[in-house]
Amino acid sequence: MKVAIVTTGDEIMSGNVVDTNSAWIADRCWMLGHKVVWHIGVPDDRRAIGEACKMASKKADTVFVTGGLGATVDDITVESAAAAFKKKMAFDEKIWGNIKSFFKRLGRECTPNNRRQAYLPKGAKPLTNKIGSAPGVMAKLGKATFFFLPGVPKELYHIFDNSIQPWLEKKSDKYHQKFLRCFGIPEASFDERLKDIKLGNVRLSFRVTFPEVKIKLVARGKNAAKEIASVEMEIRGRIGDYIFAENDITMETKIGELLTKKGLKLSIAESCTGGLISNMITNVSGSSNYFERGIISYSNRSKIEILGVKEELIEKYGAVSKECAVKMAEGVRQISGSDIGLAVTGIAGPSGGTAQKPVGTVHIAISTKDGNLHKHLCQPRERTAFKIVVAYQALDMVRRYLIRSW
Amino acid sequence: MKVAIVTTGDEIMSGNVVDTNSAWIADRCWMLGHKVVWHIGVPDDRRAIGEACKMASKKADTVFVTGGLGATVDDITVESAAAAFKKKMAFDEKIWGNIKSFFKRLGRECTPNNRRQAYLPKGAKPLTNKIGSAPGVMAKLGKATFFFLPGVPKELYHIFDNSIQPWLEKKSDKYHQKFLRCFGIPEASFDERLKDIKLGNVRLSFRVTFPEVKIKLVARGKNAAKEIASVEMEIRGRIGDYIFAENDITMETKIGELLTKKGLKLSIAESCTGGLISNMITNVSGSSNYFERGIISYSNRSKIEILGVKEELIEKYGAVSKECAVKMAEGVRQISGSDIGLAVTGIAGPSGGTAQKPVGTVHIAISTKDGNLHKHLCQPRERTAFKIVVAYQALDMVRRYLIRSW
Repeated sequence: MKVAIVTTGDEIMSGNVVDTNSAWIADRCWMLGHKVVWHIGVPDDRRAIGEACKMASKKADTVFVTGGLGATVDDITVESAAAAFKKKMAFDEKIWGNIKSFFKRLGRECTPNNRRQAYLPKGAKPLTNKIGSAPGVMAKLGKATFFFLPGVPKELYHIFDNSIQPWLEKKSDKYHQKFLRCFGIPEASFDERLKDIKLGNVRLSFRVTFPEVKIKLVARGKNAAKEIASVEMEIRGRIGDYIFAENDITMETKIGELLTKKGLKLSIAESCTGGLISNMITNVSGSSNYFERGIISYSNRSKIEILGVKEELIEKYGAVSKECAVKMAEGVRQISGSDIGLAVTGIAGPSGGTAQKPVGTVHIAISTKDGNLHKHLCQPRERTAFKIVVAYQALDMVRRYLIRSW
Repeated sequence: MKVAIVTTGDEIMSGNVVDTNSAWIADRCWMLGHKVVWHIGVPDDRRAIGEACKMASKKADTVFVTGGLGATVDDITVESAAAAFKKKMAFDEKIWGNIKSFFKRLGRECTPNNRRQAYLPKGAKPLTNKIGSAPGVMAKLGKATFFFLPGVPKELYHIFDNSIQPWLEKKSDKYHQKFLRCFGIPEASFDERLKDIKLGNVRLSFRVTFPEVKIKLVARGKNAAKEIASVEMEIRGRIGDYIFAENDITMETKIGELLTKKGLKLSIAESCTGGLISNMITNVSGSSNYFERGIISYSNRSKIEILGVKEELIEKYGAVSKECAVKMAEGVRQISGSDIGLAVTGIAGPSGGTAQKPVGTVHIAISTKDGNLHKHLCQPRERTAFKIVVAYQALDMVRRYLIRSW
């Protein structure tokens, strides 16, 4: 099925807001085998919205229109589209009732403007919105099926998941799919190791989403699940240790799952990542059950005083060294009484590098009851990209320890 | 001037990559008083690219086309656009020379494919790209001036800043502008306090960029700078303490500037923000000069052991309390020997709330030689948004202390 997206809104067109909705919708379509062939962005302007919708209906079978469903006078998306196709708008008592009770639940006043939201193009279908006042709208305009959705991402996701996803799935061939999320494998070696894999009816594709690579496996027909499982097994045989999770599971969620399953606690000593690793870990709800503490030992003094790194060790090897990283990991494990101590020390740059230890140098260590592990890397990158890659490297090291694939 | 943007690329259309370039370009245009009236996204497809460029040339005086300038066979943007306008492509020896020496500098091999990048539409002008192999292209096609730019953001920014910004400025009226970045002021009160301000020839507008609000002041003519200064003074008289920085300065950069100027050091004890505040602070290059250490005291034990919070205090008041926050701030200041100790403790949710202390409850404290400050908030939001707002609140408290506007 061919899909077009029309994005409306002055705030998008002026660059105030980055349009993430289009990529989100396109990604959902891609996962179901539908292709976005045309995307148009227009300001909150009747003529432009009408023209964009007309054009979209000529390019695609299904059109998603986002933004401009609110209650203010700027919110003219649906009526502008309807006018372009010469469809009349009709007042819907039931929607008006829903809007009134939505505001009642919130304990807020429903304004006369909200009445505008109860008008739909004749023959159109409202799509329930439980978290906002504006319902989505499904309407046949021209030869295309139009879905009008609010610009607020969480309202858009909500309506899409409940009312559109099932419809899109019906329009797809029956298929199975699976995503394998990889980290740390060099790109060249990736191709090399997978190139002669026997795929049969399974389609394999990649996406690089920094710093991850996602492998997507898709198959159709009644043996699809089995065929994917067989290709997955072959892939895991070749690069299994780089696959950190499947489908929607992130690195930090995976670490949380593994720690919870094994009943282990983690503590972290960060220098060059400056709190990013702990911040990722604590983005997961429930992380207080397995994350004990984090120490951001930015100064040498803090490494010495809190983590028990010896001053002589830093003088001899430097704060960015294997010796210091290992001692930091041991230190944070010991003071926290955690099962695993993770430590990172390095030079984020852009300044602070030397010939022996250039910008990008990092030492990562973990300390456990089974002993210590250490890794030395050089990742000369822009400061924030450096922090992200190092955080992933560090968490991946914990993951590998937990699944014993070190 | 009317502007259109054409975004090309399968990776954008399939939702693999979010298109941030369009918002970046639109924002630059907006700042110079030019308006983006139409945006079109198309896959790497000759016909679609040609059609999109044709349409854009009818909608706008200036068209920006991004993506597809690389050396692979998929990179067909410029030739597709030229073909749509029946312009011939011509090989440019000088560009070819530049491409060859670019690769030489990198110590890499220049492939025959790179030769493709030396073809331009007849009469077009190359725009120097010092950080990538593909030059930008400026060409008159139809009635519009086209700028072709690489999809890689840092190459796009580089070419834009060096070759396009000056051109756009010339096409703008002479004008002055200033941005005032605000945090923490309730929206309703914002309008209320500024509504009767005397603007004269100055145009005032807002942008909400969560969690900030930006005020933009623009004026034209020979007294523009003076007129803006006078409106700014009036605004500062009304909401000055909410303005944390001007123009491109972020909250964390501002804090760094103030600490550096005063020769003070900061240390941070975080609970519910889980490392985010320290991560923000350490995103600024040179932050090791004023950031001593961070403690992510997620467990009660770590609050007691590292920060010296008394167990009885936690039993009596709870870990999320004014008393605990103040003690954490004192503790981290004392152990680090820093001038300022900042501490945050709260309930991020979605679970963990009680009737007395609902999800979103936060206590922030700072400890200084002048005494302690404390703030109590309730910010019931989605977990990561909660962390961001609380981090800003905490940093803003430090800022206010540093400029004595507490």
